[in-house]
Amino acid sequence: MILTVTLNTALDVTYRVPSLRAGASHRVSEVLERPGGKGVNVARVLAALGHEVTVTGFSGGLTGRVLRDRLTDVPRLTDALVPISGTTRRTVTLADERTGATTHLNEPGPDITHAEWSAFQEVYDDLLASASAVALCGSLPPGVPVGAYAGLVRTARAARVPVLLDTSGTALRRGVAGRPDIIKPNAGELAELTGFHEPLRATQDARRRGARAVVASLGAEGLLAVTPEGHWRATPPARLAGNPTGAGDSAVAGLLSALVEHRPWPDRLTRATALSAATVLSPTAGDFDRGTYEEFLTTVTVTGVATAA
Amino acid sequence: MILTVTLNTALDVTYRVPSLRAGASHRVSEVLERPGGKGVNVARVLAALGHEVTVTGFSGGLTGRVLRDRLTDVPRLTDALVPISGTTRRTVTLADERTGATTHLNEPGPDITHAEWSAFQEVYDDLLASASAVALCGSLPPGVPVGAYAGLVRTARAARVPVLLDTSGTALRRGVAGRPDIIKPNAGELAELTGFHEPLRATQDARRRGARAVVASLGAEGLLAVTPEGHWRATPPARLAGNPTGAGDSAVAGLLSALVEHRPWPDRLTRATALSAATVLSPTAGDFDRGTYEEFLTTVTVTGVATAA
Repeated sequence: MILTVTLNTALDVTYRVPSLRAGASHRVSEVLERPGGKGVNVARVLAALGHEVTVTGFSGGLTGRVLRDRLTDVPRLTDALVPISGTTRRTVTLADERTGATTHLNEPGPDITHAEWSAFQEVYDDLLASASAVALCGSLPPGVPVGAYAGLVRTARAARVPVLLDTSGTALRRGVAGRPDIIKPNAGELAELTGFHEPLRATQDARRRGARAVVASLGAEGLLAVTPEGHWRATPPARLAGNPTGAGDSAVAGLLSALVEHRPWPDRLTRATALSAATVLSPTAGDFDRGTYEEFLTTVTVTGVATAA
Repeated sequence: MILTVTLNTALDVTYRVPSLRAGASHRVSEVLERPGGKGVNVARVLAALGHEVTVTGFSGGLTGRVLRDRLTDVPRLTDALVPISGTTRRTVTLADERTGATTHLNEPGPDITHAEWSAFQEVYDDLLASASAVALCGSLPPGVPVGAYAGLVRTARAARVPVLLDTSGTALRRGVAGRPDIIKPNAGELAELTGFHEPLRATQDARRRGARAVVASLGAEGLLAVTPEGHWRATPPARLAGNPTGAGDSAVAGLLSALVEHRPWPDRLTRATALSAATVLSPTAGDFDRGTYEEFLTTVTVTGVATAA
């Protein structure tokens, strides 16, 4: 199975409102709730692709219970979340029906105790024994040590499980030092990590900081991958208009899906780009359209990049 | 005890955000949750004034459980909410820390089944036997008949319990036909009910529609009361800058508090105006500042109004 780790899980709530105006009262026309946090989103896409997947991280309180209830509806997904005394956060997205704009409100995560962090590490060690790959995803909730990802990366490498890290800021900077097999920053995260704004230069710098391979997601321009096996750009067939929410998580799922099937890098990048594009075009945020995905598998272009490195 | 009815209870959630911008992502700096719905707010103020109070209406789902858990913390308040299969709605208030503006998002209420509505009416009948007054507050959730308040008003009158109705729109229009002892519309609700924008004329018209007494809340100008015992204006000592959330509910609590103590109308209006003003000035939305309240009890002015009626 593929293991995804989401230390800061969330119950993602979407409110559809006719027209959002600051300072006004609004009747919410529709309320949608679904399990969230990046690793949970990655797992849902992997399960939809037919993979057995296990979700771990933390969950607690009433929102945690709603989240776990909803996970039982996902076929091929095993819930191995570690219970905590705190309450899983909510994120609220306000979807303006008039303009299509989305406004996001992210609650702070629950405080994780020392004992809960230790309990998680034991669960993680056990799960690695049967994992073909692991993704470490998203922000760290309060109480989890800032260097947490470096430790989790090292444990995975010691267990010979390929490990992908998808986070940002200090968590990424410290996590890269653990030498993950893959990181998947977006342009902003990559610039923050390296100080370089030119993607190719920044990507190469990120490798020097410890990442074995770097797959930078550059929005509408697709992916740039710098790996020991070669350097590539993967480009969707056209500029896509849609909702980019979850496109990065779908790219992670695509990379892992092809990795565990021992496909070479160009195939991994094709799958990641096609899934990401099919997510942007889906009417429901974070879902992907299967027909679009399969069509894009044949139309994404992957080209080698010459570098001085 | 005083009975308050809240058919559309809510869990009121407040998110403090540094600066709200439509289309942006925000970290929520603080999350506050408290039981809500107008009748629940009225009950909390009455309990703070030292009255025994019973809360009824509907509650269900996980939010309903959080709401009921929180009610156990309020001294002198008895929870007689009727359980439903649906889920109690949430309201979300976004409090902008920069501008002080509040943006409100109101989820739709749960569907009430015919059996749940019948169960409520039995509970209500039983509770009236020991009630000294009853307040019927707020909107009707889906499934409750639009004429519900007229029926509840008639049941209270048959039980010789003074009944105050505080609602709006069609629920108010239909409820007034039941001949409530008091209604407490604001200027907008009164204009919608009667078609008249001049408060004194609208207030007199509302009495002709069935209300025995009408107490119109006119924001910073205080209250205008048209009753069989006389007509009065009650005015706070100064224009107040603050958060008006809950000021109307505090006015209802003030009216009922003085009513059950058999105080004459001018005393009831003084108490309602002072509580309402002390709520506007409280730093926490919906709470009232006790010192300000007691000071205002001596400085609110109540004057008779001459009418042609």
